[in-house]
Amino acid sequence: METTTSTPTHWYNIVPDLPAPPPPPLRPGTREPVGPDDLAPLFPAELIAQEVSAESFLPIPEEVREVYRLWRPTPLIRARRLERALDTPARIYVKYEGVSPVGSHKPNTAVPQAFYNARQGIRRLTTETGAGQWGSALAFACSQFGLDCEIWMVRASYDQKPYRRSMMELYGARVHASPSPRTTFGAKALAETPGSPGSLGMAISEAVEAAAPEDTHYALGSVLNHVLLHQTIIGEEALEQLTALGETPDLVVGCTGGGSNFAGLTFPFLRERLQDRMRPRILAVEPAACPSFTRGRYAYDFGDTAGLTPLLKMHTLGHDFVPDPIHAGGLRYHGMAPLLSHLYEQGLFQAIAKPQRECFEAGVLFARTEGIVPAPEPTHALAATIEEARRATEPKVILTALCGHGHLDMAAYDRYLSGEMTDHALPEDRLAAALSHLP
Amino acid sequence: METTTSTPTHWYNIVPDLPAPPPPPLRPGTREPVGPDDLAPLFPAELIAQEVSAESFLPIPEEVREVYRLWRPTPLIRARRLERALDTPARIYVKYEGVSPVGSHKPNTAVPQAFYNARQGIRRLTTETGAGQWGSALAFACSQFGLDCEIWMVRASYDQKPYRRSMMELYGARVHASPSPRTTFGAKALAETPGSPGSLGMAISEAVEAAAPEDTHYALGSVLNHVLLHQTIIGEEALEQLTALGETPDLVVGCTGGGSNFAGLTFPFLRERLQDRMRPRILAVEPAACPSFTRGRYAYDFGDTAGLTPLLKMHTLGHDFVPDPIHAGGLRYHGMAPLLSHLYEQGLFQAIAKPQRECFEAGVLFARTEGIVPAPEPTHALAATIEEARRATEPKVILTALCGHGHLDMAAYDRYLSGEMTDHALPEDRLAAALSHLP
Repeated sequence: METTTSTPTHWYNIVPDLPAPPPPPLRPGTREPVGPDDLAPLFPAELIAQEVSAESFLPIPEEVREVYRLWRPTPLIRARRLERALDTPARIYVKYEGVSPVGSHKPNTAVPQAFYNARQGIRRLTTETGAGQWGSALAFACSQFGLDCEIWMVRASYDQKPYRRSMMELYGARVHASPSPRTTFGAKALAETPGSPGSLGMAISEAVEAAAPEDTHYALGSVLNHVLLHQTIIGEEALEQLTALGETPDLVVGCTGGGSNFAGLTFPFLRERLQDRMRPRILAVEPAACPSFTRGRYAYDFGDTAGLTPLLKMHTLGHDFVPDPIHAGGLRYHGMAPLLSHLYEQGLFQAIAKPQRECFEAGVLFARTEGIVPAPEPTHALAATIEEARRATEPKVILTALCGHGHLDMAAYDRYLSGEMTDHALPEDRLAAALSHLP
Repeated sequence: METTTSTPTHWYNIVPDLPAPPPPPLRPGTREPVGPDDLAPLFPAELIAQEVSAESFLPIPEEVREVYRLWRPTPLIRARRLERALDTPARIYVKYEGVSPVGSHKPNTAVPQAFYNARQGIRRLTTETGAGQWGSALAFACSQFGLDCEIWMVRASYDQKPYRRSMMELYGARVHASPSPRTTFGAKALAETPGSPGSLGMAISEAVEAAAPEDTHYALGSVLNHVLLHQTIIGEEALEQLTALGETPDLVVGCTGGGSNFAGLTFPFLRERLQDRMRPRILAVEPAACPSFTRGRYAYDFGDTAGLTPLLKMHTLGHDFVPDPIHAGGLRYHGMAPLLSHLYEQGLFQAIAKPQRECFEAGVLFARTEGIVPAPEPTHALAATIEEARRATEPKVILTALCGHGHLDMAAYDRYLSGEMTDHALPEDRLAAALSHLP
């Protein structure tokens, strides 16, 4: 832990700094823009206001900062041992979010979401979770503000990852395997396919349906503007920490699934570049098995598989695309945050895709040099960081984010170390078929 | 993370501050004191010197401090939410060691042990591990100093906890299920009991046997003076952090297995008390299923089950006592560090025993209030902390250590939350039988 500073007082909203605002979400039927009233049954007024805010800096409530202080500021690590192993003139900095209670960056948004809902008198939050990272974060956040928390966890993960479920229950949440008989949608799915392994799309449908009572809202862990906003605390802290060290990044690298970790790390640095205070290159790294930036289409599509959400203008592989079962479960999303997609179209950052074995190789090297076992998701950013550092012929500063530790992902490392892991290329015809289903 | 400071430059050796030194280890045959020459085949000269040092403060080598900086100083957390939940006037501070790469306090000693061995030209370290915490720490430390690491892991754990094994392999260690055919002792054990589940005693015997080559040494994760010495960085940091806050502890509470975490936390505060600068009460908390302080005998006994080690004067339940399979695997040791045993006999601290369900109840309350999921071992200290805080009728300052996170122990929480966990009382006749085998 090389440097720590105080916690920032504001989140950063990049939208006012852009030449043009991102295209709005649309109602599927009429293709008219979605308004605040459409969102009110699911989200509290404060989050809806943040979703469309024109302010550059939004204050972090003191009640949220008090919870952030349990693990924030997170450390910025100078990876000197990794630099030596690579024999690189580059200086590598890693912003480490794995020190949070659940071991990832997800509580950065779960905490304010729980807070704003509690302040508006909401009693219960529902959500879906795949591997359980987001569900754990929301369960923790709800325990901080006295909210009930009900989570639909994809059946396959519910059966295979009982310890993530235990963690949610430890924080007091109720966890259902999805599809579940508790919702009309789930009961119907079970009737059609007894023993269904479920999907994130189904789990979203159940969580949204279960949010119908007046005292209940729904919470989402990525994709939406307010989620990206809350995650900017990562980049704001990193900017402060680098500045204190007298460093200016030449390159900022992050992994992208739905996009919240990447946006959180990079938006403050994009601001600095847009305002001509520094000129870092920004690089997004996605899995080759789920390459929404590099091979997807920029189009209006549904955020979920079942087609229940508004239409979002984003880079998408098609809403019914099912990524291969790579170990970086947090990056297996068919779409991309609309705000990030908009920035990408404007050429504000670049994107590359990496196969998973190269990523795990980077994760092993990082663990053996710097000690920390990275979660499979940020190994994508590490792989690109290592590639760039190896290429460097003169000193440069690279910043990346380690958005979680891998202590709950040792099975994946086991497969890699035993030589059983395979890469998953995405055949052109499979991609074309998924894209042909765009609405 | 409420306060952090710089990393201390010295470890603290309590021995010179004691009215009398602890009784020496003895050779089993002659019952004469063990000398440095007896230890030289297993340990480097610097560690043997630390084992018997008469200096109060031993400098931490810069190479070790450089690795410590990967996670040190560790946070000192004011547990305000826990205080509120308990409605206590007490102020509770928690020194959190779970931010280390392997998630526990064990690297505090693994790193200097690897360093001193490497500096002496040793190429390979051997050790045993039960649940895998110590093995992970030594594997990490060896990766930092370019040492080979070979670990004998109790067969039952090897089969049941594959992810701890994966973590050791991730750091580059070789892991063998014990008993193994790789040693004479292991081959004999396997011949006698094919499919033996192993024991820590057997694993120690194999690791010691495998340390026979000249370029190979053995490493131990608790019990010995030099191990306790290295862990005092915990208490030194906590003392600095509390002082910076203007706080003086009235009570310092730690859990005890072999004793290294407890000694590391409390020795600096015992020094302050011995030198009349503060008057904290010091409390050790052990599992009711393995109560060496509260129900063991203070006698010379073997450190291992097979009787291969020197005789150690310590609180012991008998070297062939096998504790019930409680989830706090790190506290399942029949003996206690001789130095701690000596201090206990002199009345320098008190000890109590706790059944495991009360401990897990404390762990759940801590997770729901403070967010961090504690490992099963420190829930013992938390249970006592909570009991003392509930009893408090006026402001007092309680300090405890959370020596590891529980992300790899969710199966235990699962059993607790599902109501399947039981307590393990230790019947008087079983204890008497084990004590009757003292040498």
